[in-house]
Amino acid sequence: MDNSYDVVVIGGSAAGLTAAITSRRFYPEKSVIIVRKEEKVLIPCGIPYIYGTLESPLKNLVPDAVLEKNNIELLVGNVTAIDISSKTIETKKGNRIKYEKLIIATGSIPAVPPISGSEKENVYVINKDVNYLQNLLDKVESSSDMIIIGGGFIGMEFADECNKNRDINITVVEMLPCCLMIAFDEDICRQGEDILKKNGVNIITNAKVEAIVGDVKVEGVKLSDGKIIKADIVLIGIGSKPNTEIAKNSGIELGEKGSIKVNRYMQTSDEDIFACGDCCEKISFFTKKLSNMMLASIACNEARIAGANLYKNNRANEGVVGVFATAFGETALARAGLSLQEAKENGYDVVAGTAEAPNTHPGCMPGGKNLKVILIFERGTGIILGGQLIGSKSGGEMINLISACIHEKMTANNMATFQMGTHPALTASPVAYQISNAAEMAVKELRK
Amino acid sequence: MDNSYDVVVIGGSAAGLTAAITSRRFYPEKSVIIVRKEEKVLIPCGIPYIYGTLESPLKNLVPDAVLEKNNIELLVGNVTAIDISSKTIETKKGNRIKYEKLIIATGSIPAVPPISGSEKENVYVINKDVNYLQNLLDKVESSSDMIIIGGGFIGMEFADECNKNRDINITVVEMLPCCLMIAFDEDICRQGEDILKKNGVNIITNAKVEAIVGDVKVEGVKLSDGKIIKADIVLIGIGSKPNTEIAKNSGIELGEKGSIKVNRYMQTSDEDIFACGDCCEKISFFTKKLSNMMLASIACNEARIAGANLYKNNRANEGVVGVFATAFGETALARAGLSLQEAKENGYDVVAGTAEAPNTHPGCMPGGKNLKVILIFERGTGIILGGQLIGSKSGGEMINLISACIHEKMTANNMATFQMGTHPALTASPVAYQISNAAEMAVKELRK
Repeated sequence: MDNSYDVVVIGGSAAGLTAAITSRRFYPEKSVIIVRKEEKVLIPCGIPYIYGTLESPLKNLVPDAVLEKNNIELLVGNVTAIDISSKTIETKKGNRIKYEKLIIATGSIPAVPPISGSEKENVYVINKDVNYLQNLLDKVESSSDMIIIGGGFIGMEFADECNKNRDINITVVEMLPCCLMIAFDEDICRQGEDILKKNGVNIITNAKVEAIVGDVKVEGVKLSDGKIIKADIVLIGIGSKPNTEIAKNSGIELGEKGSIKVNRYMQTSDEDIFACGDCCEKISFFTKKLSNMMLASIACNEARIAGANLYKNNRANEGVVGVFATAFGETALARAGLSLQEAKENGYDVVAGTAEAPNTHPGCMPGGKNLKVILIFERGTGIILGGQLIGSKSGGEMINLISACIHEKMTANNMATFQMGTHPALTASPVAYQISNAAEMAVKELRK
Repeated sequence: MDNSYDVVVIGGSAAGLTAAITSRRFYPEKSVIIVRKEEKVLIPCGIPYIYGTLESPLKNLVPDAVLEKNNIELLVGNVTAIDISSKTIETKKGNRIKYEKLIIATGSIPAVPPISGSEKENVYVINKDVNYLQNLLDKVESSSDMIIIGGGFIGMEFADECNKNRDINITVVEMLPCCLMIAFDEDICRQGEDILKKNGVNIITNAKVEAIVGDVKVEGVKLSDGKIIKADIVLIGIGSKPNTEIAKNSGIELGEKGSIKVNRYMQTSDEDIFACGDCCEKISFFTKKLSNMMLASIACNEARIAGANLYKNNRANEGVVGVFATAFGETALARAGLSLQEAKENGYDVVAGTAEAPNTHPGCMPGGKNLKVILIFERGTGIILGGQLIGSKSGGEMINLISACIHEKMTANNMATFQMGTHPALTASPVAYQISNAAEMAVKELRK
């Protein structure tokens, strides 16, 4: 194969796929190809759910039908080089493809902490690879003591899932005072921890892992206080780092944290090359400072900007709001924007309002479950900075409503009187509606 | 009792209660009393659910604990007069209460069409009264053929509920070409009808009721084509009219449709008297023309404005967006803003975008169900005018996200790139997220 396409996208996960679809929508006359290394692409956010709910990596795949539907070609191949002068990419097998516009969406790779013993057998990271994850699944099935290093979102989701219908002793080891702490303020973190604890997951916080011990195979984890916890499987889930090897080698400029530098239009230092997703640099919507956040939803958002701007600037990136959700059993936890702590750390003078109500009315309707919402506003301007919630699964969309309000810089007063729709089986009553009331409580504070 | 309060609220349903709570929040130093005629207040939107899901009106009550919590006094009594010169209200039992500020939240009463025979025994309307509704429940239990006149939201919810776990033959008679037509564009109406039909409810559309027939008791309904349908119970659910008797008698100005006239601040023609909810006049957020819409959620929104403005204008009413949802079984149907038809009727040049995806990712996650979203934008400005959805129950909050976008006059381009959060168990994938994709399809049209 030696070919030429108008638009070449490297990477076929959330960002690459969305960028390709968006460029197809904006530039229907252009030829578009995705070059990706995976035969089958995993749904990134679904990976933890392979281990309890889905029971197989093959149930967690991005369907390729969407490529055909959008007239996007596909080449499975490992891109090894980008030649920016000849505007050509090259794969490991020697395929060379010429591009007019290139989108780099190479994602991220698991971060491995500098812990001695992390190379031992039965120590896993979260590689987005079907065979690797199937192997991990087989190992989880046959293990009796599992340690998960890192109590962030992914670590906690893995703990919850691996614990389902399985006779296994799971321990999460977290360095910070509580799990999920990068995501939520302490109260909600504790409630999240409690759900997992009730399900029998052990949680050790304020604990640094000093070494992974064992002969050839892992036998346990040694904490910095000297304590050793037994394990026949260890999963490291401490986050990811941008996958920027080929970009870097091609001479494309990287940022100070090693991500691909992009401007407001998702354009790299080469005007014909765009980047989006985990591999590219992000700034905060609020502070415009660099942001470490990596989420499939951010990746898709950036892809919708990159894909639209290939031949003309149609959209601009205002930075990462940061919206994410998880669920443990029937309980959703979600956040949008700044946490209370982050807001304070960034010098905001803040006011919070809280409201809790059942997600049905009356609360005795089937499926009725409380949903608690905390909204954070700036004193003075009254503009929303963030929101957190815990409770019923309807919170999964409610957090997106909060995100829309953040995008539009809505004030507490406007959020208290925005017109929501309600229904007995679907939402809180209009009297008790959480967003209105949390905003109203903040208005009360703001008026002081 | 002969007393004086700073703030007197007439009516203890959604609007009255919310207005009282809001005035308490804004004016903590003021004394607040609700005067209402009902011993127990029904949750208005929950009324249809008494007939299948809840099984008793007593399970559908607004808890009075909220009054005590907010330091709001309560008098149960039927207000018969407002004397605006002495700033006093009077109840049937002769209680006189002096007010500094008065909020009228007297709601609505069922509209009864001028059909001969509507006075017959076993013909019911939807009176918000516990005993009346218990009596209706008893009658439903012992009936074999029920006709519901009116296939709007309430009629359809009643049909769905009365049909649950009960050996009864239910027929909905609707004047328009399909049920739910005032709420949705035709495609979604048909899907809604189909759910009820599958459950065994009969639906007759394009049918005008000419008479309710029978001797003393109802025996059937005669349609204008001469056909008679057998019935031992008839429920009229064609809507409500504002309850404005005492306001009118006191000299407060009414609007041309008989509702209490209010300004942007929910103030009536008397500067110390405010009104909110079904009893007061509404205008459209879009056209600023009079709106007939009556919803508990609108009532609460107006109450939050009225309660805040009693002593100072803190908030303004921009008019009715119109956001509502219903659910038949596991399927939610919802709308915010203008329908396609309404937008066209009001002279808008519109573009629609549609997207459908499961509410989980992968779709095989438990509870995975499709959710279809239609967004309507104005050509040229690209501003959102409305949205409709049908599918998973997460739509109940997603419609509120659409409403927030309407409030903020977001454009299709901004909605396509707004940052949402996603999670396998809670939402569509970020690639397929319905709001982004429906907006993106509209962007494609808008660019033409």
